[in-house]
Amino acid sequence: MRMSELSSRTGVSIPTLKYYMREGLLPAGERTSPNQSRYNDTHVERVRLVRALLDVGGLDVARARTVVAAVDDESIPLGWVFGVAQRAVTIPASLVSDSADSDGSDDAGMTEGERLIGELCARRAWHVELRNPGLALAARVLDTYSSLGQDRLHAALDQYAEAADLVAAADLAAVASAPDEAEMTNVVVIGTVLGDALFAGLRRIAQEAESARRFPSPEGTRYPVNGAEFLSPHNPKES
Amino acid sequence: MRMSELSSRTGVSIPTLKYYMREGLLPAGERTSPNQSRYNDTHVERVRLVRALLDVGGLDVARARTVVAAVDDESIPLGWVFGVAQRAVTIPASLVSDSADSDGSDDAGMTEGERLIGELCARRAWHVELRNPGLALAARVLDTYSSLGQDRLHAALDQYAEAADLVAAADLAAVASAPDEAEMTNVVVIGTVLGDALFAGLRRIAQEAESARRFPSPEGTRYPVNGAEFLSPHNPKES
Repeated sequence: MRMSELSSRTGVSIPTLKYYMREGLLPAGERTSPNQSRYNDTHVERVRLVRALLDVGGLDVARARTVVAAVDDESIPLGWVFGVAQRAVTIPASLVSDSADSDGSDDAGMTEGERLIGELCARRAWHVELRNPGLALAARVLDTYSSLGQDRLHAALDQYAEAADLVAAADLAAVASAPDEAEMTNVVVIGTVLGDALFAGLRRIAQEAESARRFPSPEGTRYPVNGAEFLSPHNPKES
Repeated sequence: MRMSELSSRTGVSIPTLKYYMREGLLPAGERTSPNQSRYNDTHVERVRLVRALLDVGGLDVARARTVVAAVDDESIPLGWVFGVAQRAVTIPASLVSDSADSDGSDDAGMTEGERLIGELCARRAWHVELRNPGLALAARVLDTYSSLGQDRLHAALDQYAEAADLVAAADLAAVASAPDEAEMTNVVVIGTVLGDALFAGLRRIAQEAESARRFPSPEGTRYPVNGAEFLSPHNPKES
């Protein structure tokens, strides 16, 4: 197909497609004349993946480039693709590097957050390598809670960890249900990047439901909304 | 204290403090002379909160401004602060608005993702208002899975939802443990923004642990790492 058809099939404008190509997110088409190239279904799939990474996953172009490179490189073993996808989407990147020189380290050179995460890993039999980007990220959040005087949020750690195990088990079950290794790689990449957003969305819904249970307010004062409807399958959204 | 002390106590440079003030993230000090202002512990706390929102939570300045305004406004009821914090950190903002005109809607004007999330809310007795930003975000992710040919990831939805309930219960328990309403507001804001990052970190750790159980690789081929050590309290990080 021509670029105009690639554009209409994906809903992505031609200038944006050209931008993706310049940025190494989309391979060039097969050149058929000096001014014309031909594209195929692989390009359609790739454009959809790139849009999902950028628009729904919230990645920047550099991180998206790393992710698609991992998808393309068939020599990368599956466990490693996980690592690439994880590192690409562990926001912000600065976190992973500078925890070593943060203040509040004890004798062993660990911060309280690092110690708490280390103990958590032992309790849950999570054996992972030190370069797992989740370690530094989680430890940094705990240290930030402390610096803000909110140590009480540390009490949520074990319940968060139990939830993380549930999600990870579902993630890996989805990977295992893919028919071949190339497809598994896609599931790893897409599920890792977009699963964060899915979980964040569900957490917001569950928070509101739980908040209404714990802190019921007088009718009508909770949100200044005029007659907002509740979402249920029997009461579909009207707009 | 003077601005130089505010800077040394928070580790934030004077130009950055001035930038926070220009951007409405930090209130001005009490002016003591034409060239001098005095700051107090409230300023120290606020600087730490702003840094946490920007550096660890990954918010941009506009969203951080919305969040600190919600913290400052004592007239906002607690349930509403949740809403403000949720909306401020549901990335990216574009998601919440444009799901209505996405393709793939059925007769009732709902996408498959919206239908699945509506049914999920009914199954879990999650009664929430339609403006909850999690609804559109979660539905959009499910629709994106479909557009990428990864409907198999929909199978993870109920386990994600169970995990979200665990996390939300822990979140609300932390809120309830705060001594007064002002402190509850802080817990809501900090826990909502940073809790996403904490969970994302733990998910990455749990994924690697679960991946190693499900897909064991021959020794040494999983990561091209020379003798990386495993994290445990008995084997602390060396660098």
